[in-house]
Amino acid sequence: MHSDESIPDMIEKKAMKATHKALCKYGYADLTMKKIADESDRCKSTFHYHYDTKENLLVNFIQYLLDGFEKRMVPETEDPLKKLNGFIDRMLFGLGDEETAESFHTALIEIRSQAPYNEKFRGQITKNDEYILHITTNIIQEGIEKGRFKNTDPKNTAIVILSAIYGARARHISTDRNATEELRTALDWILDELIVK
Amino acid sequence: MHSDESIPDMIEKKAMKATHKALCKYGYADLTMKKIADESDRCKSTFHYHYDTKENLLVNFIQYLLDGFEKRMVPETEDPLKKLNGFIDRMLFGLGDEETAESFHTALIEIRSQAPYNEKFRGQITKNDEYILHITTNIIQEGIEKGRFKNTDPKNTAIVILSAIYGARARHISTDRNATEELRTALDWILDELIVK
Repeated sequence: MHSDESIPDMIEKKAMKATHKALCKYGYADLTMKKIADESDRCKSTFHYHYDTKENLLVNFIQYLLDGFEKRMVPETEDPLKKLNGFIDRMLFGLGDEETAESFHTALIEIRSQAPYNEKFRGQITKNDEYILHITTNIIQEGIEKGRFKNTDPKNTAIVILSAIYGARARHISTDRNATEELRTALDWILDELIVK
Repeated sequence: MHSDESIPDMIEKKAMKATHKALCKYGYADLTMKKIADESDRCKSTFHYHYDTKENLLVNFIQYLLDGFEKRMVPETEDPLKKLNGFIDRMLFGLGDEETAESFHTALIEIRSQAPYNEKFRGQITKNDEYILHITTNIIQEGIEKGRFKNTDPKNTAIVILSAIYGARARHISTDRNATEELRTALDWILDELIVK
Protein backbone atom coordinates (compact mmCIF):
# COMPACT_ATOMS: atom_id res chain seq x y z
CA MET A 1 0.00 0.00 0.00
CA HIS A 2 1.14 3.51 -0.71
CA SER A 3 -0.16 5.07 2.44
CA ASP A 4 2.09 8.09 1.98
CA GLU A 5 0.25 8.98 -1.21
CA SER A 6 -3.40 9.94 -1.03
CA ILE A 7 -5.72 8.13 -3.41
CA PRO A 8 -6.88 10.32 -6.33
CA ASP A 9 -10.57 11.27 -5.97
CA MET A 10 -11.54 9.72 -9.26
CA ILE A 11 -9.99 6.37 -8.41
CA GLU A 12 -11.56 6.48 -4.94
CA LYS A 13 -15.00 7.16 -6.42
CA LYS A 14 -14.68 4.35 -8.97
CA ALA A 15 -13.35 1.94 -6.33
CA MET A 16 -16.16 2.67 -3.87
CA LYS A 17 -18.91 2.34 -6.49
CA ALA A 18 -17.38 -0.89 -7.77
CA THR A 19 -17.09 -2.29 -4.22
CA HIS A 20 -20.75 -1.49 -3.56
CA LYS A 21 -21.83 -3.23 -6.78
CA ALA A 22 -19.62 -6.27 -6.18
CA LEU A 23 -20.78 -6.66 -2.56
CA CYS A 24 -24.44 -6.62 -3.66
CA LYS A 25 -23.68 -9.10 -6.46
CA TYR A 26 -21.39 -11.62 -4.72
CA GLY A 27 -21.64 -10.96 -0.98
CA TYR A 28 -18.57 -10.65 1.23
CA ALA A 29 -17.26 -14.23 1.37
CA ASP A 30 -16.80 -14.56 -2.41
CA LEU A 31 -15.49 -11.06 -2.97
CA THR A 32 -12.14 -10.65 -4.74
CA MET A 33 -10.19 -7.64 -5.99
CA LYS A 34 -10.72 -9.00 -9.51
CA LYS A 35 -14.53 -9.04 -9.07
CA ILE A 36 -14.47 -5.51 -7.67
CA ALA A 37 -12.30 -4.23 -10.54
CA ASP A 38 -14.61 -5.93 -13.05
CA GLU A 39 -17.43 -3.65 -11.83
CA SER A 40 -15.36 -0.62 -12.89
CA ASP A 41 -13.38 0.42 -15.99
CA ARG A 42 -10.10 -0.04 -14.12
CA CYS A 43 -8.04 -3.18 -13.78
CA LYS A 44 -7.26 -5.13 -10.63
CA SER A 45 -3.68 -3.85 -10.43
CA THR A 46 -4.88 -0.23 -10.13
CA PHE A 47 -6.90 -1.12 -7.06
CA HIS A 48 -4.06 -3.20 -5.63
CA TYR A 49 -1.69 -0.28 -6.16
CA HIS A 50 -3.88 2.16 -4.27
CA TYR A 51 -5.46 -0.07 -1.62
CA ASP A 52 -2.97 -2.93 -1.36
CA THR A 53 -5.39 -5.51 0.11
CA LYS A 54 -9.09 -6.29 -0.17
CA GLU A 55 -9.34 -5.79 3.59
CA ASN A 56 -7.96 -2.29 3.28
CA LEU A 57 -10.30 -1.46 0.41
CA LEU A 58 -13.24 -2.64 2.53
CA VAL A 59 -12.22 -0.52 5.53
CA ASN A 60 -12.17 2.46 3.13
CA PHE A 61 -15.59 1.39 1.90
CA ILE A 62 -17.09 1.28 5.41
CA GLN A 63 -15.66 4.76 5.99
CA TYR A 64 -17.10 5.90 2.64
CA LEU A 65 -20.61 4.85 3.76
CA LEU A 66 -20.46 7.72 6.27
CA ASP A 67 -19.67 10.35 3.61
CA GLY A 68 -22.86 12.29 3.09
CA PHE A 69 -24.70 9.78 5.30
CA GLU A 70 -26.87 12.42 7.00
CA LYS A 71 -27.79 14.11 3.70
CA ARG A 72 -28.61 10.77 2.10
CA MET A 73 -30.47 9.08 4.96
CA VAL A 74 -32.21 11.92 6.82
CA PRO A 75 -34.97 13.60 4.81
CA GLU A 76 -34.99 17.39 4.76
CA THR A 77 -38.18 18.46 6.47
CA GLU A 78 -39.21 20.77 9.28
CA ASP A 79 -41.43 18.10 10.85
CA PRO A 80 -39.36 16.00 13.31
CA LEU A 81 -41.77 13.03 13.07
CA LYS A 82 -41.53 12.96 9.27
CA LYS A 83 -37.77 13.21 9.64
CA LEU A 84 -37.60 10.30 12.10
CA ASN A 85 -39.98 8.14 10.07
CA GLY A 86 -38.14 8.88 6.81
CA PHE A 87 -34.81 7.99 8.44
CA ILE A 88 -36.22 4.70 9.81
CA ASP A 89 -37.65 3.84 6.37
CA ARG A 90 -34.33 4.47 4.62
CA MET A 91 -32.43 2.45 7.25
CA LEU A 92 -34.87 -0.47 6.94
CA PHE A 93 -35.66 -0.48 3.23
CA GLY A 94 -32.74 1.36 1.61
CA LEU A 95 -32.94 4.09 -1.00
CA GLY A 96 -33.42 2.00 -4.11
CA ASP A 97 -35.19 -1.25 -4.86
CA GLU A 98 -35.87 -3.87 -2.22
CA GLU A 99 -33.60 -6.52 -3.72
CA THR A 100 -30.55 -4.25 -3.74
CA ALA A 101 -31.25 -3.26 -0.13
CA GLU A 102 -31.42 -6.93 0.89
CA SER A 103 -28.19 -7.84 -0.89
CA PHE A 104 -26.45 -4.84 0.58
CA HIS A 105 -27.66 -5.52 4.13
CA THR A 106 -26.56 -9.14 3.71
CA ALA A 107 -23.05 -8.02 2.77
CA LEU A 108 -22.92 -5.56 5.67
CA ILE A 109 -23.93 -8.29 8.13
CA GLU A 110 -21.27 -10.60 6.69
CA ILE A 111 -18.67 -7.86 7.23
CA ARG A 112 -20.02 -7.24 10.76
CA SER A 113 -19.73 -10.97 11.51
CA GLN A 114 -16.02 -10.80 10.62
CA ALA A 115 -15.38 -7.77 12.87
CA PRO A 116 -14.68 -9.86 16.01
CA TYR A 117 -11.71 -11.38 14.15
CA ASN A 118 -10.63 -8.20 12.37
CA GLU A 119 -9.52 -5.17 14.34
CA LYS A 120 -9.53 -2.81 11.35
CA PHE A 121 -13.13 -3.66 10.46
CA ARG A 122 -14.12 -3.32 14.11
CA GLY A 123 -12.44 0.08 14.48
CA GLN A 124 -14.16 1.48 11.42
CA ILE A 125 -17.56 -0.07 12.26
CA THR A 126 -17.29 1.47 15.75
CA LYS A 127 -16.85 4.92 14.17
CA ASN A 128 -19.85 4.38 11.87
CA ASP A 129 -21.98 3.06 14.72
CA GLU A 130 -21.20 6.05 16.93
CA TYR A 131 -21.87 8.53 14.16
CA ILE A 132 -25.22 6.95 13.23
CA LEU A 133 -26.25 6.83 16.90
CA HIS A 134 -25.37 10.51 17.17
CA ILE A 135 -27.51 11.38 14.10
CA THR A 136 -30.48 9.39 15.47
CA THR A 137 -30.20 10.99 18.92
CA ASN A 138 -30.13 14.44 17.30
CA ILE A 139 -33.35 13.82 15.35
CA ILE A 140 -35.15 12.86 18.57
CA GLN A 141 -33.58 15.76 20.48
CA GLU A 142 -34.78 18.19 17.79
CA GLY A 143 -38.32 16.78 18.07
CA ILE A 144 -38.31 17.37 21.83
CA GLU A 145 -36.97 20.91 21.46
CA LYS A 146 -39.63 21.73 18.89
CA GLY A 147 -42.31 20.43 21.28
CA ARG A 148 -43.39 17.77 18.80
CA PHE A 149 -42.07 14.81 20.85
CA LYS A 150 -42.65 13.98 24.50
CA ASN A 151 -39.81 14.87 26.86
CA THR A 152 -38.22 11.48 26.39
CA ASP A 153 -34.59 10.36 26.79
CA PRO A 154 -33.16 10.88 23.28
CA LYS A 155 -30.10 8.65 23.56
CA ASN A 156 -31.86 5.66 25.14
CA THR A 157 -34.67 5.95 22.59
CA ALA A 158 -32.10 6.13 19.78
CA ILE A 159 -30.27 3.05 21.11
CA VAL A 160 -33.48 0.99 21.11
CA ILE A 161 -34.58 2.19 17.65
CA LEU A 162 -31.15 1.69 16.02
CA SER A 163 -30.54 -1.71 17.65
CA ALA A 164 -34.02 -2.82 16.55
CA ILE A 165 -33.32 -1.67 12.97
CA TYR A 166 -30.06 -3.67 12.81
CA GLY A 167 -31.74 -6.67 14.41
CA ALA A 168 -34.70 -6.56 12.01
CA ARG A 169 -32.34 -6.33 9.01
CA ALA A 170 -30.54 -9.45 10.27
CA ARG A 171 -33.84 -11.24 10.94
CA HIS A 172 -35.12 -10.20 7.52
CA ILE A 173 -32.27 -11.74 5.53
CA SER A 174 -31.91 -14.85 7.71
CA THR A 175 -35.59 -15.89 7.95
CA ASP A 176 -38.59 -16.20 5.64
CA ARG A 177 -40.39 -13.48 7.61
CA ASN A 178 -40.75 -9.91 6.39
CA ALA A 179 -38.98 -8.72 9.52
CA THR A 180 -38.22 -5.18 8.32
CA GLU A 181 -41.89 -4.54 7.48
CA GLU A 182 -42.92 -6.06 10.83
CA LEU A 183 -40.54 -3.78 12.71
CA ARG A 184 -41.79 -0.77 10.76
CA THR A 185 -45.35 -1.50 11.95
CA ALA A 186 -44.17 -2.18 15.51
CA LEU A 187 -42.13 1.05 15.61
CA ASP A 188 -45.11 3.09 14.36
CA TRP A 189 -46.99 1.86 17.33
CA ILE A 190 -44.09 2.39 19.78
CA LEU A 191 -43.42 5.94 18.51
CA ASP A 192 -47.09 6.74 18.96
CA GLU A 193 -46.97 5.64 22.60
CA LEU A 194 -43.55 6.82 23.53
CA ILE A 195 -42.57 9.83 21.51
CA VAL A 196 -45.29 11.66 19.63
CA LYS A 197 -47.18 14.30 21.57
CA MET B 1 -26.85 -39.37 5.62
CA HIS B 2 -28.96 -42.09 7.11
CA SER B 3 -32.17 -40.15 7.34
CA ASP B 4 -34.22 -43.34 7.69
CA GLU B 5 -32.46 -44.14 10.95
CA SER B 6 -32.97 -41.81 13.88
CA ILE B 7 -29.83 -40.65 15.62
CA PRO B 8 -29.29 -42.32 19.03
CA ASP B 9 -29.88 -39.89 21.91
CA MET B 10 -26.42 -40.31 23.32
CA ILE B 11 -24.74 -39.52 20.01
CA GLU B 12 -27.08 -36.56 19.49
CA LYS B 13 -26.25 -35.17 22.93
CA LYS B 14 -22.48 -35.56 22.38
CA ALA B 15 -22.70 -34.06 18.90
CA MET B 16 -24.67 -31.02 20.06
CA LYS B 17 -22.39 -30.31 23.03
CA ALA B 18 -19.31 -30.70 20.83
CA THR B 19 -20.78 -28.39 18.15
CA HIS B 20 -21.49 -25.75 20.79
CA LYS B 21 -17.93 -25.95 22.13
CA ALA B 22 -16.35 -25.93 18.68
CA LEU B 23 -18.47 -22.95 17.52
CA CYS B 24 -17.42 -20.92 20.59
CA LYS B 25 -13.78 -21.91 20.06
CA TYR B 26 -13.36 -21.53 16.29
CA GLY B 27 -16.40 -19.62 15.02
CA TYR B 28 -18.40 -20.74 12.02
CA ALA B 29 -16.04 -20.06 9.10
CA ASP B 30 -13.23 -22.28 10.42
CA LEU B 31 -15.48 -25.06 11.69
CA THR B 32 -14.84 -28.61 10.46
CA MET B 33 -16.31 -32.00 11.36
CA LYS B 34 -12.87 -32.93 12.68
CA LYS B 35 -12.79 -29.94 15.06
CA ILE B 36 -16.31 -30.75 16.26
CA ALA B 37 -15.45 -34.41 16.85
CA ASP B 38 -12.29 -33.38 18.72
CA GLU B 39 -14.53 -31.66 21.31
CA SER B 40 -16.17 -35.05 22.04
CA ASP B 41 -14.93 -38.59 22.75
CA ARG B 42 -16.18 -39.75 19.34
CA CYS B 43 -14.34 -39.66 16.04
CA LYS B 44 -15.18 -37.68 12.94
CA SER B 45 -16.55 -40.70 11.07
CA THR B 46 -19.26 -41.27 13.72
CA PHE B 47 -20.55 -37.75 13.16
CA HIS B 48 -20.29 -38.11 9.38
CA TYR B 49 -22.22 -41.38 9.59
CA HIS B 50 -25.12 -39.84 11.53
CA TYR B 51 -25.21 -36.30 10.12
CA ASP B 52 -23.53 -36.71 6.73
CA THR B 53 -22.46 -33.05 6.30
CA LYS B 54 -21.39 -30.21 8.54
CA GLU B 55 -24.32 -28.20 7.16
CA ASN B 56 -26.75 -30.89 8.28
CA LEU B 57 -25.17 -31.11 11.72
CA LEU B 58 -25.52 -27.34 12.08
CA VAL B 59 -29.20 -27.37 11.09
CA ASN B 60 -29.70 -29.98 13.84
CA PHE B 61 -27.77 -27.74 16.19
CA ILE B 62 -29.98 -24.69 15.46
CA GLN B 63 -33.02 -26.93 16.11
CA TYR B 64 -31.39 -28.18 19.33
CA LEU B 65 -31.12 -24.60 20.62
CA LEU B 66 -34.92 -24.60 20.89
CA ASP B 67 -35.05 -27.75 23.05
CA GLY B 68 -35.81 -26.57 26.54
CA PHE B 69 -35.38 -22.96 25.38
CA GLU B 70 -38.23 -21.64 27.51
CA LYS B 71 -37.09 -23.48 30.63
CA ARG B 72 -33.50 -22.33 30.14
CA MET B 73 -34.12 -18.71 29.12
CA VAL B 74 -37.30 -17.67 30.97
CA PRO B 75 -36.88 -17.52 34.77
CA GLU B 76 -39.57 -19.16 36.85
CA THR B 77 -41.23 -16.40 38.80
CA GLU B 78 -44.75 -15.13 39.43
CA ASP B 79 -43.73 -11.53 38.75
CA PRO B 80 -44.08 -10.78 35.00
CA LEU B 81 -41.58 -7.90 35.15
CA LYS B 82 -38.93 -10.10 36.78
CA LYS B 83 -39.69 -12.71 34.14
CA LEU B 84 -39.31 -10.23 31.26
CA ASN B 85 -36.15 -8.69 32.71
CA GLY B 86 -34.61 -12.10 33.40
CA PHE B 87 -35.36 -13.22 29.85
CA ILE B 88 -33.83 -10.04 28.36
CA ASP B 89 -30.70 -10.51 30.54
CA ARG B 90 -30.25 -14.11 29.43
CA MET B 91 -30.76 -13.18 25.77
CA LEU B 92 -28.23 -10.34 26.00
CA PHE B 93 -25.60 -11.77 28.33
CA GLY B 94 -26.06 -15.55 28.11
CA LEU B 95 -26.21 -17.99 30.98
CA GLY B 96 -22.50 -18.45 31.67
CA ASP B 97 -19.52 -16.15 31.48
CA GLU B 98 -19.40 -13.09 29.25
CA GLU B 99 -16.64 -14.39 26.98
CA THR B 100 -18.54 -17.60 26.12
CA ALA B 101 -21.68 -15.57 25.40
CA GLU B 102 -19.73 -13.30 23.05
CA SER B 103 -18.10 -16.19 21.18
CA PHE B 104 -21.43 -17.94 20.90
CA HIS B 105 -23.29 -14.84 19.66
CA THR B 106 -20.50 -14.28 17.15
CA ALA B 107 -20.95 -17.82 15.79
CA LEU B 108 -24.74 -17.41 15.64
CA ILE B 109 -24.38 -14.16 13.68
CA GLU B 110 -21.96 -15.86 11.28
CA ILE B 111 -24.54 -18.62 10.72
CA ARG B 112 -27.28 -16.01 10.29
CA SER B 113 -25.14 -14.19 7.70
CA GLN B 114 -24.98 -17.42 5.66
CA ALA B 115 -28.76 -17.96 5.78
CA PRO B 116 -29.49 -15.86 2.67
CA TYR B 117 -27.37 -18.34 0.68
CA ASN B 118 -28.52 -21.46 2.52
CA GLU B 119 -32.16 -22.51 2.47
CA LYS B 120 -31.80 -25.15 5.19
CA PHE B 121 -30.26 -22.67 7.63
CA ARG B 122 -32.94 -20.13 6.73
CA GLY B 123 -35.78 -22.60 7.25
CA GLN B 124 -34.53 -23.62 10.68
CA ILE B 125 -33.70 -20.04 11.75
CA THR B 126 -37.24 -19.02 10.74
CA LYS B 127 -38.66 -21.69 13.08
CA ASN B 128 -36.43 -20.55 15.94
CA ASP B 129 -37.26 -16.90 15.32
CA GLU B 130 -41.01 -17.55 15.35
CA TYR B 131 -40.82 -19.64 18.50
CA ILE B 132 -38.75 -17.05 20.38
CA LEU B 133 -41.11 -14.28 19.25
CA HIS B 134 -44.01 -16.36 20.54
CA ILE B 135 -42.34 -16.85 23.95
CA THR B 136 -41.59 -13.12 24.25
CA THR B 137 -45.14 -12.15 23.27
CA ASN B 138 -46.51 -14.58 25.89
CA ILE B 139 -44.44 -13.05 28.69
CA ILE B 140 -45.81 -9.60 27.87
CA GLN B 141 -49.36 -10.95 27.45
CA GLU B 142 -49.15 -12.60 30.88
CA GLY B 143 -48.02 -9.30 32.43
CA ILE B 144 -51.02 -7.51 30.92
CA GLU B 145 -53.45 -10.21 32.11
CA LYS B 146 -52.03 -10.04 35.61
CA GLY B 147 -52.51 -6.26 35.57
CA ARG B 148 -48.79 -5.66 36.09
CA PHE B 149 -48.19 -4.22 32.59
CA LYS B 150 -50.07 -1.48 30.78
CA ASN B 151 -52.58 -2.62 28.18
CA THR B 152 -49.96 -2.55 25.46
CA ASP B 153 -49.74 -4.45 22.16
CA PRO B 154 -47.82 -7.62 23.16
CA LYS B 155 -46.67 -8.69 19.70
CA ASN B 156 -45.46 -5.28 18.53
CA THR B 157 -43.67 -4.77 21.83
CA ALA B 158 -42.08 -8.22 21.52
CA ILE B 159 -40.93 -7.47 17.95
CA VAL B 160 -39.19 -4.28 19.05
CA ILE B 161 -37.57 -5.88 22.11
CA LEU B 162 -36.37 -9.00 20.26
CA SER B 163 -35.10 -7.09 17.22
CA ALA B 164 -33.25 -4.71 19.54
CA ILE B 165 -31.67 -7.66 21.39
CA TYR B 166 -30.40 -9.22 18.15
CA GLY B 167 -29.19 -5.83 16.90
CA ALA B 168 -27.38 -5.07 20.16
CA ARG B 169 -25.66 -8.48 20.10
CA ALA B 170 -24.46 -7.74 16.56
CA ARG B 171 -23.33 -4.22 17.53
CA HIS B 172 -21.61 -5.61 20.63
CA ILE B 173 -19.38 -8.08 18.79
CA SER B 174 -18.67 -5.80 15.80
CA THR B 175 -17.77 -2.59 17.65
CA ASP B 176 -15.70 -1.54 20.66
CA ARG B 177 -18.87 -0.36 22.42
CA ASN B 178 -20.54 -2.30 25.20
CA ALA B 179 -23.73 -2.39 23.13
CA THR B 180 -25.53 -5.11 25.10
CA GLU B 181 -25.08 -3.23 28.38
CA GLU B 182 -26.19 -0.01 26.66
CA LEU B 183 -29.34 -1.68 25.35
CA ARG B 184 -30.06 -3.15 28.79
CA THR B 185 -30.05 0.38 30.27
CA ALA B 186 -32.10 1.74 27.37
CA LEU B 187 -34.68 -1.05 27.68
CA ASP B 188 -35.03 -0.48 31.44
CA TRP B 189 -36.04 3.02 30.63
CA ILE B 190 -38.36 2.03 27.75
CA LEU B 191 -40.08 -0.68 29.83
CA ASP B 192 -40.64 1.87 32.56
CA GLU B 193 -42.39 4.23 30.15
CA LEU B 194 -44.18 1.74 27.99
CA ILE B 195 -45.03 -1.37 29.92
CA VAL B 196 -44.81 -1.21 33.69
CA LYS B 197 -47.87 0.10 35.48
